This record gives sequence, structure tokens and C-alpha cells, in this order.
Amino acid sequence: MVNIAVLGYGTVGSGVVEVLFKNRESLQRKAGQALQVKYILVRRDFPGDPHTDLMVRDFNQILEDPQVQVVAEVMGGLEPAYTYTRACLERGKSVVTSNKELVAQYGAELLQIAREHHVNYLFEASVGGGIPIIHPLHLCLAANEIEEIAGILNGTTNFILTKMIQEKMSFADALALAQQLGYAERDPAADVEGHDACRKTCILASLSFGEHVYPKDVHTEGITEITSEDVAYAASCGCVIKLIGRAKRGAPGEKIQAMVSPALIRHDSQLGTVDDVFNGILVRGDATGDVVFYGKGAGKFPTASSVVGDIVDCVKAADTIPSLTWKPSQGGNVADPQDNVTRMYLRCSSEQAGLGYAKSLFGEIQPLSREGQPSEEFAFIAPAMAEREINAKIANLEEMGVTISGKIRVLDY
Amino acid sequence: MVNIAVLGYGTVGSGVVEVLFKNRESLQRKAGQALQVKYILVRRDFPGDPHTDLMVRDFNQILEDPQVQVVAEVMGGLEPAYTYTRACLERGKSVVTSNKELVAQYGAELLQIAREHHVNYLFEASVGGGIPIIHPLHLCLAANEIEEIAGILNGTTNFILTKMIQEKMSFADALALAQQLGYAERDPAADVEGHDACRKTCILASLSFGEHVYPKDVHTEGITEITSEDVAYAASCGCVIKLIGRAKRGAPGEKIQAMVSPALIRHDSQLGTVDDVFNGILVRGDATGDVVFYGKGAGKFPTASSVVGDIVDCVKAADTIPSLTWKPSQGGNVADPQDNVTRMYLRCSSEQAGLGYAKSLFGEIQPLSREGQPSEEFAFIAPAMAEREINAKIANLEEMGVTISGKIRVLDY
Repeated sequence: MVNIAVLGYGTVGSGVVEVLFKNRESLQRKAGQALQVKYILVRRDFPGDPHTDLMVRDFNQILEDPQVQVVAEVMGGLEPAYTYTRACLERGKSVVTSNKELVAQYGAELLQIAREHHVNYLFEASVGGGIPIIHPLHLCLAANEIEEIAGILNGTTNFILTKMIQEKMSFADALALAQQLGYAERDPAADVEGHDACRKTCILASLSFGEHVYPKDVHTEGITEITSEDVAYAASCGCVIKLIGRAKRGAPGEKIQAMVSPALIRHDSQLGTVDDVFNGILVRGDATGDVVFYGKGAGKFPTASSVVGDIVDCVKAADTIPSLTWKPSQGGNVADPQDNVTRMYLRCSSEQAGLGYAKSLFGEIQPLSREGQPSEEFAFIAPAMAEREINAKIANLEEMGVTISGKIRVLDY
Repeated sequence: MVNIAVLGYGTVGSGVVEVLFKNRESLQRKAGQALQVKYILVRRDFPGDPHTDLMVRDFNQILEDPQVQVVAEVMGGLEPAYTYTRACLERGKSVVTSNKELVAQYGAELLQIAREHHVNYLFEASVGGGIPIIHPLHLCLAANEIEEIAGILNGTTNFILTKMIQEKMSFADALALAQQLGYAERDPAADVEGHDACRKTCILASLSFGEHVYPKDVHTEGITEITSEDVAYAASCGCVIKLIGRAKRGAPGEKIQAMVSPALIRHDSQLGTVDDVFNGILVRGDATGDVVFYGKGAGKFPTASSVVGDIVDCVKAADTIPSLTWKPSQGGNVADPQDNVTRMYLRCSSEQAGLGYAKSLFGEIQPLSREGQPSEEFAFIAPAMAEREINAKIANLEEMGVTISGKIRVLDY
């Protein structure tokens, strides 16, 4: 029998406890021994909860209990999660988590501590909620060098964009609906500004390319500037707008490319059909080609399912799993976004200049049109070039009195 | 260092050897020790091949070498693969394979022998080629009871259907093209009659529901009867025709539902956008909801990638992996397809009867139309009912002199 402690009893924590009780028999079969919740660390009372007998308020009670072998840290945030995780690993307890902020900031260090103490630090639930992605990335795709990853990694923003696309809602209305349905926080910044997607992108990039990638180094744009007009122009060329986190292995001696931003992608592609609160993650391996993983990126039971899957893995592992690791880094290992070569959608307005002038500046542009397009508005897709160059040409447009009201990368996923 | 023998040196076998040599360093890091190919079992000479020094023709040389710890069986077919696999497992050697025919027929037995000898029998490559599916199904989704699986499991038929849909080719022309490109065998029966998809469905069902499901028990229809007219009617209601293998857990005390057949599914769903030779597999878990895995379902390197991933797993496993298992069965555990409740697309022709008569028989039908539809032709989707009932009504139609020229299930994936 393996004793488990669950740190935190919010949405994910209560889901973890429920799944461990509900699927107890099949979990015992799969893990090879019984999984027993011994403690739940809480900060307040839960009167009437069926598990009050397991609840404790003192973390040290868990830390000092040598019977606790696996700890599920589902509190979120950097502190006290970091201190608790470190302490558990140093005491030879494996830790599993859904805490993307912690993994994105301290992953390399915590993995190293786990290795030194022959235990595991697993975080399947930190990316893609209920989608198996971390495990497949380092285990099932072990035969591959991962060249590139790209994904719709945040369900809240994907819900908002889906409503803007399918029901022609404004950003503000779609956000309000997401808040009403409990998909978005009252302060939605972490989602709509792209920070959540950035953390997940960093975790995937670190694991795929073998060195720590910090959120602060990854150029991140959210979806707050996206308008219904942009959505309509995108539709006119068979595209949808999605918030895409992506990272690409650098050529030998070169830096990793990584970015989080809205992008126009084909509406009928594997990522283009990921709608509502779902997530989709594309992995490009040198042997296997493109593999895409799709499922619920958040929610109580999908996330709990991943946490519990990791608990089973910890129970079965005789030692630290060697493939789940990456090197620490000092940061600064991501290429300058100005060097990023991309196609770019631009929406402009001007009384004088128009598509002709854009063409003379950018070369082979793809003009776009939409219903109800005002006479002074024009939009087009500029051919692939470095963003530095695109920005210089945009400055030229602006000198001509052109106002740029939309600027979104166009990607091939 | 771990010594490996590769049985067979065809497309997959040579891919396995190439990946093991090419990614040697990263594989050593992930497996925790070096992977060394010691033998390649061949049936003919390969003059000029860089690995002739490793080639042997006598299986016993491999079997009797106690240094060989992992054997990759990539020969295909039931014999001698079955005899060799059994012998290796009984000698305490782990076996990994891409052989879906063998797993679908003898999986429960071979898993049992592996368990008795504390080794592993792994077959990630047997379903979905380079897509991680077997491993995620029993490991990453361990917290779930799997309720249902459904997939586009055969790349050849999906290529043919994609050409029929996107380029309006006939079945015969699309098959000829697939043969020309090397996607289809000269004798394409195993693919176009659905047998290959059936074997894969059985493997997924056995693993998901915990008891062996035999191909002979699963009602299987291929795509040879699909016509351009059916494709056009499907498009008129936002659908595409795909060959779908699916299986659903039976309610307590009831049999498993499983079937392989063409089906109309939404063109913009996760499975509906799986085109060309790609595969897509949907897994419905009680905790995580729907998860979809997408990637190359066949081909030298995708399949080799899965085989090599399994080799890494064998090297790391201290004992038999407890979650990869299912009970033997005598067969007969799949429900009668006549009891299957489904919506059904029907294409009919008659000088007398028409949609009105269909409506009086089937109730709330959805009428369909297509460009160039002859006056005596009519098509519709009948509401959900048991196939037994649908067939009785079809008999009624036929008594009225109606000819049924198309009959395809309509699914909700």
C-alpha cells in the first residue's frame, strides 16, 4: 500500500481525492498496489465533506511522516508550493503537480533534486489538463528528436476566440460570457494576456529541447487586441484566429525560437478545429513526423485524471525516470523575436494609400476583403520575412498616414 | 548496455535499426544505458547494407544468447512470429512488436507468458503507427475507466476516401493511385475490406475493457461499396465518409459493442479532419472526457519510432508493467450488430416511391440532395433505431420496388 498526501483541496485537489476513491480498484490493478489518501492539507474547514478525517493544516505533519511516499501538490502559485515541493523531494517523497507556474520557473532545479533523492517530480497536469502530453513527449516519442511543438494551450482564450468566430461576439462580450460560465477568472489577465500559455510553452520547450526556457524570455502577446474585423478577414481566407504557443529547436549553435501570440491558421487543420475550451498540441518529431494531442485543457476531472496518472507512475517507478529531465539554464537562450520570419496579416486604414502602396512595399501580398468593409480600410497578408523587416515597412506605411489597426502572424499549422 | 535483436529487416525492421543507430546518444540518455543492436534476423542477403555483420539466419542463435534482453519482432503475420515471440518471452527476453495480427489473435496469452517470466510484451506500433496510443491508454489515462474508443485506424483507406472526397475520384481510381504511391498492396483486401482496422479495433477494445476481443467477433465492413454519389450526399449535410473502428464498454452484464464500417461523420470534427494517410484515435474516459491522438498511422520511421520507444520502455522496466494486460476470453463477448442503435444514411432509387414513403416508414428523416441528382434517386438520413429495425424497413422499401444503392451509418464523432 502506498500512502499519498494531497496539498490543497480546491477544484483540482478535490477532484484528485474523488478519482482516487472512485476508481480505487482499477487504480490498484494498474499501480500494482493500493493507493491510500492519508492526508489532505487544507487552509480552512470543509464542514460536511466526507474526508474531514484526512484533513490537516500543518504541512510538517505530512513532511515528517515517513509513510507518505507520494505528494500531490495542487495548490498552485510559487509559494509555499516551491518550499513544500523542495522539502518533500529532499525527504525522498515523490511529488506530482498541476502547477505550471512552478514548473516553468523552477522545473530544472526540482527535477535535479528529485534525481538526487531517487524519487520523481511529475507534472503531466501542468500542460493540457487531461491530455497526456508530458509523458508521451519524453517516453513514447523517446525515439525522436523533437524539432518543434505548437499548441492551443489555454482553454479560456480559445473559448473566447471560438465565440468571436462562430457567434460573431465582440471580445468584451465573449470574455464576459467566459467569466459568467466560470471559464475565466474575475481578473482574466493571466489567460487573455497569454501568460498561462507562455508557462506551458516553456515547459514543453524545456522538455523537448533539453534546457530550461524561462517565461520572461518568451515574447508573449495575448488576444485583447483581436477584433471582429480581424476574425472576418481571417475567415475570408479560410483561416481562424487562435492563440498559439510554439517553440522550435535552434539550428546547431543557434538559440531556441519560441513565442506566444494570436495567429491565423487554416480552419480545417488539426489545430484549427480545436474549439471551445479544448486544447490541442502538435509535436513534430524527426522520426514520427507530426503528432497531435487533443482534449480538455482544464477542468476538475480532466486535470485530476492527469495528476492521478502521475501518482500511478510514481508508485511503479523504481527510481527517477531518466527521460524526464532538462538542463538548468541562466535564461537568454531564446532568439530575438525581431529575427522571427513569418507571414503577417495587416489591417490598415488610410484615405490616400491602399493595397497598391502595400504591394510596392511588401511585394507579393495576398489582399483580403470582408462584408461591410469601409472604403478607407484595406487588409492583406504580407509574404514571409523577418519581423524586423515587417516593422520597418509598417513604419513606412505609417509615415504615409496609414493607421495599422490589426497585425497578426500567419502560421502554417 | 542492453543487447537487442531485430527479427525481420523489411520496411519497419530497417527503420528500427536506423533509428537505433541515428539517435543512439539521446536514446542512451533516455533509457539510462546504451542500446546495442546485436543481431538482425534475415531470410535473404542484403549486399552492401552497412549492418551485414549483425545479420543471422538462425533464430536459435538469438534465442540461445543470454545477452539478448530485448527482441523487436517486426516480421508480421502469425507464423513464425507467434512461435518466436513465445519462445523469447519464455526465455525471459522482452519482446516489442508492430504485429497487429499477432496481438489481435494471441495478445492475452502472450501478455500472460510475459508476466510469468517478469518481462514485457509491448506493441505500441501495432495501432496508429507513430502515434502514441497504447502507452497513453493504459498509463497516462490510468485514472480513467475507458468508456469508448473510435478511430480512423487505416491510412490506406483514409487516403482513398480523402481522394474521393477532395478530388472527386472514383473508388477504383483512388485505389489505383494508392497502389501506385505504395500506400496500398497489390492485393488490397486487408485494407479496403476493413480487416486491418478490425485488428486494431480489437487491440484497443481488449486493452480498454480488460478482456480479449477477437477480430472474428467484430462486424466489419470495408469501403469498396462507397461511391462518389454517397460522398456528394454526405458533403451536402456537412459530413465526410470515413472508415471508423469503434468499441464501447458494455453496461454491467452486457456485451461489448464493437464494429468497423464506413460512417458519415461531421467534416469539421477532430476525426473528420483526419485526412490522407493520417490516423486519428478518440478515447473517451470517465474522468478526462474525449482525448484525440493524431499522426502518421504507418510508414517506416513513424512505426520504427514506436517500436524503439517500446524498446526504451523495456530497458527501463524492472518487471512486467502491471497496467498493460487483459483477461483471456473464449470470444463471443461482442454484442449482436443487429442490436446496434444508429442513424443511417440511405440512397435509394424508385420510379414510384420517394421521400414521402421513406418518411411514412422511418419517421423524422433528414432528406438530402446533390448536384445532378436523377429524378428517380432519393437519399436521406433515418433517425436512430436498432439495425434490426432499419433492415426490416429496408425490406419494406424493397417490396415497394425501391432499390437501395447506398447504406452507411451516421455517427456522432
